[in-house]
Amino acid sequence: MDTTQSGAGGRAMHINLFLFACGHHRAAWRHPYSSVGRLGDIRYYEQLAQTAERGKLDAVFFADGQSADNPADGPRWFLEPLTTIAALCRATERIGFISTVSSTFYTPFHAARMLASLDHLSGGRIGWNVVTSMFDSEARNHGYEAMPDHDWRYERAEEFVDVVLRLWDSWSDGALLRDRDGLYADPGQIHAIRHKGAHFLVDGPLTVPRPPQGHPVMFQAGASGQGRSLAARRAEAIYAVAYDLASAQSYYRDIKRRVREAGRTDPVPIMPGLVTYVASTSAEARRKQRELDELLPAEDALRQLGLYVGRDCMGWELDAPVPDLPPLERFAGPKGRYATILRIIETEKPTVRQLLGRLAAGGGHCTMVGTPDEIADEMERWFLNEGADGFNLMPPALPESIEDFVDFVIPILQDRGLFRRDYDSRTLRGHLGLQRPGSR
Amino acid sequence: MDTTQSGAGGRAMHINLFLFACGHHRAAWRHPYSSVGRLGDIRYYEQLAQTAERGKLDAVFFADGQSADNPADGPRWFLEPLTTIAALCRATERIGFISTVSSTFYTPFHAARMLASLDHLSGGRIGWNVVTSMFDSEARNHGYEAMPDHDWRYERAEEFVDVVLRLWDSWSDGALLRDRDGLYADPGQIHAIRHKGAHFLVDGPLTVPRPPQGHPVMFQAGASGQGRSLAARRAEAIYAVAYDLASAQSYYRDIKRRVREAGRTDPVPIMPGLVTYVASTSAEARRKQRELDELLPAEDALRQLGLYVGRDCMGWELDAPVPDLPPLERFAGPKGRYATILRIIETEKPTVRQLLGRLAAGGGHCTMVGTPDEIADEMERWFLNEGADGFNLMPPALPESIEDFVDFVIPILQDRGLFRRDYDSRTLRGHLGLQRPGSR
Repeated sequence: MDTTQSGAGGRAMHINLFLFACGHHRAAWRHPYSSVGRLGDIRYYEQLAQTAERGKLDAVFFADGQSADNPADGPRWFLEPLTTIAALCRATERIGFISTVSSTFYTPFHAARMLASLDHLSGGRIGWNVVTSMFDSEARNHGYEAMPDHDWRYERAEEFVDVVLRLWDSWSDGALLRDRDGLYADPGQIHAIRHKGAHFLVDGPLTVPRPPQGHPVMFQAGASGQGRSLAARRAEAIYAVAYDLASAQSYYRDIKRRVREAGRTDPVPIMPGLVTYVASTSAEARRKQRELDELLPAEDALRQLGLYVGRDCMGWELDAPVPDLPPLERFAGPKGRYATILRIIETEKPTVRQLLGRLAAGGGHCTMVGTPDEIADEMERWFLNEGADGFNLMPPALPESIEDFVDFVIPILQDRGLFRRDYDSRTLRGHLGLQRPGSR
Repeated sequence: MDTTQSGAGGRAMHINLFLFACGHHRAAWRHPYSSVGRLGDIRYYEQLAQTAERGKLDAVFFADGQSADNPADGPRWFLEPLTTIAALCRATERIGFISTVSSTFYTPFHAARMLASLDHLSGGRIGWNVVTSMFDSEARNHGYEAMPDHDWRYERAEEFVDVVLRLWDSWSDGALLRDRDGLYADPGQIHAIRHKGAHFLVDGPLTVPRPPQGHPVMFQAGASGQGRSLAARRAEAIYAVAYDLASAQSYYRDIKRRVREAGRTDPVPIMPGLVTYVASTSAEARRKQRELDELLPAEDALRQLGLYVGRDCMGWELDAPVPDLPPLERFAGPKGRYATILRIIETEKPTVRQLLGRLAAGGGHCTMVGTPDEIADEMERWFLNEGADGFNLMPPALPESIEDFVDFVIPILQDRGLFRRDYDSRTLRGHLGLQRPGSR
């Protein structure tokens, strides 16, 4: 079936692979088949990107952090994402690559330049996920005594985005003349930006001619009010956190309303994170999940859970149901994660071990466990009911979980006309159905 | 002949390709065979790196600048070097890559992290050329009103280098345990650095485990007193500017003396820049040079020359000898380039056009024009007479000039036992004969 004739009314689902260490389950590296010995080997990432491209995914997504916290517990960061992506572009032909870039720790000139360079290197396949970062330990690697407050970071992010976009536009599309008997470039089509704001002084122009996509695609993951506001005004695609369809719908409708109110007509696809355990039977899928959960060192996980729920959990029995917890309004600590924990207990009635496993893989993100058909059904339900325009796949264990998804779930989505059978574009912007911005 | 039995007493020559745009001659992009249309195409750089690797060169060297000055006149910057190098590592197997990184515009955490990531990506083939940058136009892209003064920049560079080295050592070589039933890493082998200096606050540790080389190789190009002092204390290899053997010897002896006085026993190879025009006859080599010189727009070049020599040159006849110029002590402008111009006039008795061509290709760097044997003779003379431990090749026109060098000069150097016939190491440090630093 052609996607343009599908039950989705011609809407195409978008799917990214969110590539992280040995997978998103915190214990994945402990599995006997894990790639924990290959995290410094670029070929490991090349193979994963090639698997994603075989599945015709829109892009590979990279998170980023600027500090090595608790390195003994398991792998988090190893290779830096911008350099990694440069290599991966050359091992693939069509799939896009999205790098997280922190507006708090980068300067707009470096960010604009590296992303523009990658966009040329890849022939127009780059996106950037703007984040403002969170941890004091990151701030203390970049000259701050502590993390600047939320308002300051978002104010800086707004100015940062503005400067980056203007730098990308500082060379017009036609600026390169390459006239061997005359001018290399047309000085009338290359403009200083002369930016001087509260956070940055940047004269421009950029050293790199305008990127193939005009602007590499801007992703954002705004959750706070300021985050949603920035996303609605600026983001071209959104990475969301949603535990279930109801919370996905609430976020989806809010963002789409804000986008309309900002006077924008772009599609702004919303892609929640999604953890999947796929197997030929539901029981086998649950077994895969349990196998990873059982690799979690229980003592560490219980200690961590104790911090989340504000009580000592060390005596909890792992295979018994989770003891009763006080309601949200009586919890004094950080509410977000506590609310997710109550929601998991209420809807899934997990054992203690199952709860620890859920928290260890994707945290508050949606988890789907089942056969390829069951998972495709659930994805379709979100897609057709204002829960999602696509998904940011968070495979619990790599490479197995993404191979399972590409080999067994993708063909079903294709048969249902929900997902492309092949790329019809050469750029990430094209995959996502976004217009190329003209030169200013 | 085996290099260990050569007339050079077992000393091996080191040769880098300094890759720049369409070549180092300012008019190279105007040549009918130039690659001016491919400067945004990573395959152009991959092919050049593969040519250099075919010649068994030590490394490919990238300069960098942070502003687009006079973009109409010809290509300078296009792709950003760190992202470019990530891709080139994957198109080659043995050759090293050296990126210029400005200590004035980067922060040490970003620099340490990107270079460490590249060193892992490449399996230990990365070097960094520390520069402090020069131009106000660069400063004004990075938050400064004007370029900070020389002393401040060198003070920052010293602290920058110190922090970067400590970040690379923040994970010991044995820190990664990858014990699936225990710890991923040994917390006793991962150390915060808690740096707080005049310029930087950096807690560490780095997010990237210790690089394969321990430290990517540090290049430096110190010319001023402070630059030479930094180079003598810290650099592991040096990129030098020398117009002729006499000036090369004076620099070489000064640096070697300073290195000894700093109590160091490392070899610290010194590699002057070298522009070569190679052909089967001397006349043909000179014709190649003239062909490029004739592509220079004379009016622009004469205007530029006027700025260098402090007088109006617009009426000078191109094919006549250069008119007399006042001696150095009577020249009021910047002395460095004026001294080079007097030197060229004195030793080469050039026509005006020839002088413009010399200045347009490598400026004050040595230029050798001749047959493969003549060029090998001259390189050997520098190598055996305290002028150089090797060379940083600055091909005037790419790809032709580097292909000529690799195909015709390299085999002669190999036959004379001056240059390797094949790589005997997998790391840049190995190619350069440098020890791997142990973890601190």
